[in-house]
Amino acid sequence: MAAAREPAFRRVALLGVGLIGGSVAAAARASGCADHVAGHATGDDAAQALALGLIDSACASVAEAVRGADLVVLAAPVPALPGLFQALAPHLDTAALITDCASTKTSTVAAAREALGPAFSRFVPAHPIAGSERHGPAAARADLFQRAVAVVCPHAGNSAAAVASISGFWRAIGARVVELDPARHDRVFAEVSHWPHALVFALCAAIARGECPDDALRMAGAGLRDTTRIGASSPALWADILLDNREPVLRSAAAFQTELEALLADLRDGNRDALIARFDAASAWRRALG
Amino acid sequence: MAAAREPAFRRVALLGVGLIGGSVAAAARASGCADHVAGHATGDDAAQALALGLIDSACASVAEAVRGADLVVLAAPVPALPGLFQALAPHLDTAALITDCASTKTSTVAAAREALGPAFSRFVPAHPIAGSERHGPAAARADLFQRAVAVVCPHAGNSAAAVASISGFWRAIGARVVELDPARHDRVFAEVSHWPHALVFALCAAIARGECPDDALRMAGAGLRDTTRIGASSPALWADILLDNREPVLRSAAAFQTELEALLADLRDGNRDALIARFDAASAWRRALG
Repeated sequence: MAAAREPAFRRVALLGVGLIGGSVAAAARASGCADHVAGHATGDDAAQALALGLIDSACASVAEAVRGADLVVLAAPVPALPGLFQALAPHLDTAALITDCASTKTSTVAAAREALGPAFSRFVPAHPIAGSERHGPAAARADLFQRAVAVVCPHAGNSAAAVASISGFWRAIGARVVELDPARHDRVFAEVSHWPHALVFALCAAIARGECPDDALRMAGAGLRDTTRIGASSPALWADILLDNREPVLRSAAAFQTELEALLADLRDGNRDALIARFDAASAWRRALG
Repeated sequence: MAAAREPAFRRVALLGVGLIGGSVAAAARASGCADHVAGHATGDDAAQALALGLIDSACASVAEAVRGADLVVLAAPVPALPGLFQALAPHLDTAALITDCASTKTSTVAAAREALGPAFSRFVPAHPIAGSERHGPAAARADLFQRAVAVVCPHAGNSAAAVASISGFWRAIGARVVELDPARHDRVFAEVSHWPHALVFALCAAIARGECPDDALRMAGAGLRDTTRIGASSPALWADILLDNREPVLRSAAAFQTELEALLADLRDGNRDALIARFDAASAWRRALG
């Protein structure tokens, strides 16, 4: 018989309990790695999360949620993070660890450095890759991170012990941890997530404003449904992510536009061999993705 | 007890028995709407289709497949169609109906008009919307058209009886029939299928040739997998479709580029409200798609 294990954390505070924060909360409870999960959120998300059984207590303020917590997890939209760091800093326990779930890391690290003082060394940035076009506490699931990647992005001020504890937390709730430095993270995620969202929004908007939006709705097959699925994502959330990670996204956009212009020139010229060579490179990469 | 129904066709000839042709064959057999399904294809596709039980007989020539058939279904790639129309014309029974499965209709109608003589009135173009990034007889399935749309594209020379019989055939093998004229079909499918394929090929090629193709493979989430799924499609097949439907595709591309340039300008300018308005239009259309 396995020995009973102590929970790794007495009290985990979730700031934000939507799809991601609610799922972190539920997974922390389900995995037994927290004695108590407290949640705070704007609107009635915390009350909903409590009613759904995602958290043990709903707190009216950041201070109330954070006091006594040995782990604080920020799971609010990107623009809310600087304010949350400012609000939580005075109430942090002296040994409390902090992590987050934001899709961008350079600005998050800068906001934390600005607000946290000495506690900055205990803030280990993270980005769990488990979004969805759904959102809110009702979309949260304890198994959202099973087999998902959590990118942990240590900064130069982190202690090895803090990085190990935070990585252990993400593993405990089901994720596979991969490390990337914050700037590299932002470059890679511009390429694989942020820029593709902008592209798909542009594709859907062009169809919606084009010559045949209704026939397009009737005739779209499984291919277009899959291609455009992320186009149903939250407009405000994605505007904020794109603005926050603007320079890397614009670099990905520029490389894409160069590729697209060349492809369209081949199409105009009727250059079948050149088109096939382009599509071969694309298709080989996509097949490697599996 | 329902009266036993005569099969609608004594002999159906499939010219091409890959994913689509093989599935038409298997569905025609499974639905009981054909007494005998004969197949002809290049390479060893017909032998494979016979071994897989998709067809009743594999024919060494177009002439052999078509002789005695009361329905001929062309299911070969777009560039092969003009040659097939030429090859089948001399061997057609006087009352035989003809349909096809091509993704483009204007050029198909032109090739049929050129080759078929009086039989052109019995050629009713069609396009079943049931592709996949897989191909070949081994990917064929008798239920591929269940709940799929088959777009039937009558031309001015068709008799109402021929259109009704061909529509009945597509319904018999499981599809829901929608009518569009050939030019409108090509415009709509440029928008919902051909242009999105070009776009996704360009996205994948730009990632493959970009700064971080290997990190992109490691970090891609479910969103990018879905967005790029059609990027694994056959390069040669799609080069031919795009070249065949070039003008409508270039119109969709131009409208997209206008939308994208405006989006990128809003992003560069930090115009959050304008970005959200664009994404709202996109997201509303995508949510309507369901």
